[in-house]
Amino acid sequence: MKLLEERILKNGRNLGNGILKVDGFINHQVDPLLMDACGREFAERFKSLGATKILTAEISGIAPALLAALHLKLPVVYARKSKPITMPDQVFLTLAPSHTKGRTIELIVSPEFLAEGDKVLIIDDFLASGQTILGLVRLAQAAGAEVVGIGTLIEKTFDGGRGLLAPTGVPVEALAVITDMQDGRIVFAAFGG
Amino acid sequence: MKLLEERILKNGRNLGNGILKVDGFINHQVDPLLMDACGREFAERFKSLGATKILTAEISGIAPALLAALHLKLPVVYARKSKPITMPDQVFLTLAPSHTKGRTIELIVSPEFLAEGDKVLIIDDFLASGQTILGLVRLAQAAGAEVVGIGTLIEKTFDGGRGLLAPTGVPVEALAVITDMQDGRIVFAAFGG
Repeated sequence: MKLLEERILKNGRNLGNGILKVDGFINHQVDPLLMDACGREFAERFKSLGATKILTAEISGIAPALLAALHLKLPVVYARKSKPITMPDQVFLTLAPSHTKGRTIELIVSPEFLAEGDKVLIIDDFLASGQTILGLVRLAQAAGAEVVGIGTLIEKTFDGGRGLLAPTGVPVEALAVITDMQDGRIVFAAFGG
Repeated sequence: MKLLEERILKNGRNLGNGILKVDGFINHQVDPLLMDACGREFAERFKSLGATKILTAEISGIAPALLAALHLKLPVVYARKSKPITMPDQVFLTLAPSHTKGRTIELIVSPEFLAEGDKVLIIDDFLASGQTILGLVRLAQAAGAEVVGIGTLIEKTFDGGRGLLAPTGVPVEALAVITDMQDGRIVFAAFGG
């Protein structure tokens, strides 16, 4: 997606070690008009899948998932990383190693909002190692729901997440695909994501 | 706002001790169409203030703030509760006691995204004790920015937050004003928020 790639080149920063700083428009300060355009693009790419619900993980998945949900007119559920007092005692919980946080995080969803029969579209900001998204896949499966698609704003191919998700057999779409961040560069896949 | 009040009566639950469960449409599962309507309402109420930026707190403030930002065409910044690796070492940080979490939370904003000259509209999901919102006010002031308005989806008047915010002298708008949750009831202010 040209708009997102151009924004990454303009306002993103390669901090080294494969870390891309996009907190000026995605995950601290958010550009709502850019997110709206990305949400519309997700809706366009996934509209034929018959999804009944969007699933994401707090915190930085919320913005892109919410705007995709707005355009697809679907409810969106964000997995919590800690259990709020309003959640029932029995929950779906899985553990996912977080590369950027350097520790394992919990992903928790209430069984009130994910159930058998749901066709789940997973949306997140980054596809890197794929561990968070694979955790969301496990949560959906634990609920007896079917995952029908996976979409992320940005994919870093060199972190191998797409391979990890391949056994799920569902379509994986990334709006900006970065193939190389060595030596301070930000290189996008030639086909433009 | 009628639409939000009706939804609270239909899908909200009074858990006792002043705790309102709205995680079916606001803060775990989110109804994007409801949030869009609320965002439009915030935009309508605050459009004349000349805000340059919306400020909220992760996690549950993100959805309403993002949709308000979309309708006002403003960037939105969400204060983080822990410092990500992409954030500079020097940050604006304040502490806020959290009633629902039973502990003190950190609210952190990068100086890259909040600065002197900014006219800040604060949007959050709940106005209860007002401590989180007052923390956001302190962050804005620390940055030399001016707070021009405060908006929340829901206000619980019996937690006294409006009084705490009164010294700021800025307009405080809540889309649904709850005056009483005793004995399992959910009572809205007669003027309808």
